[in-house]
Amino acid sequence: MSREDPFDSALDLELERVVDVKPALVWASWTEPERLMKWFCPKPWQTVECDIDLRPGGIFRTVMRTPEGELMPHSVGCYLEVVPNEKLVWTTALLPGFRPVAAATDGSDGCHTIEFTAIISLKPQGEGTRYRVVVRHGDEASARRHVEMGFHDGWNTVLDQLVAEAKR
Amino acid sequence: MSREDPFDSALDLELERVVDVKPALVWASWTEPERLMKWFCPKPWQTVECDIDLRPGGIFRTVMRTPEGELMPHSVGCYLEVVPNEKLVWTTALLPGFRPVAAATDGSDGCHTIEFTAIISLKPQGEGTRYRVVVRHGDEASARRHVEMGFHDGWNTVLDQLVAEAKR
Repeated sequence: MSREDPFDSALDLELERVVDVKPALVWASWTEPERLMKWFCPKPWQTVECDIDLRPGGIFRTVMRTPEGELMPHSVGCYLEVVPNEKLVWTTALLPGFRPVAAATDGSDGCHTIEFTAIISLKPQGEGTRYRVVVRHGDEASARRHVEMGFHDGWNTVLDQLVAEAKR
Repeated sequence: MSREDPFDSALDLELERVVDVKPALVWASWTEPERLMKWFCPKPWQTVECDIDLRPGGIFRTVMRTPEGELMPHSVGCYLEVVPNEKLVWTTALLPGFRPVAAATDGSDGCHTIEFTAIISLKPQGEGTRYRVVVRHGDEASARRHVEMGFHDGWNTVLDQLVAEAKR
């Protein structure tokens, strides 16, 4: 198990639950596009596109659609660490090939999108999995905005959806 | 050998040379603080501090001193990929623990520091090493500024210094 870096409550958000699905199935849910698209955003929103190149620097891209049918701009980032059935780390702060994200140049305050790194850790527990997510931000404003956008409800809801889909 | 992502001449800078030092010694020069401090910045500048935690997400931090004795602000980033004697990837766009760098909030244009990812690839060639560096930027302005700051002379000079130190 790789060491976990210290949690900073001003900059990081976390979610930890035990779910009654085995780590290998949780891993498949995160790493197979057809599976991920079924649970990755809170219904009735839908994930309609998903690209996964499961290696450090590999692309992780999703496109979501609103209940009204409007396609959202794609979200693209890359994987940083891939330890099968154990640890998956991806970030929106680097593009595929580890390319830094360009500083915002659209005249906005440069903070219109949230850059974060998500660290998903899986440990077998009984017949299920201890599922832990830590989401790291570069500054307190980004962390606060992510909470305001519904991080806690959202990530809990999609975990419920992941488990429901995995049990089908 | 892990696959190399496509080179973008508008965003990436590169250096490739064959040096007469074996990959293992080049690797040691990059990954042992005492060795790195001897060659990492063009003389008469000096690297006076160096922290290396050689794992994905681990810290890579250096402090440089000017010929006049002035300490520069530290440069801190993290490692992304560590494949001994073969490939070393580190970035200034993520802090240790894969934490995104905070958007600049000091009123500057937010671009006072250059964010980049450096990919160092080593291949045995004869009695030496084919040494390839690709440095990725998020936008053309950063790439241009890195050139204006002397990327090509700088990285070539420090490679000469690496080889000279390695042969001692």
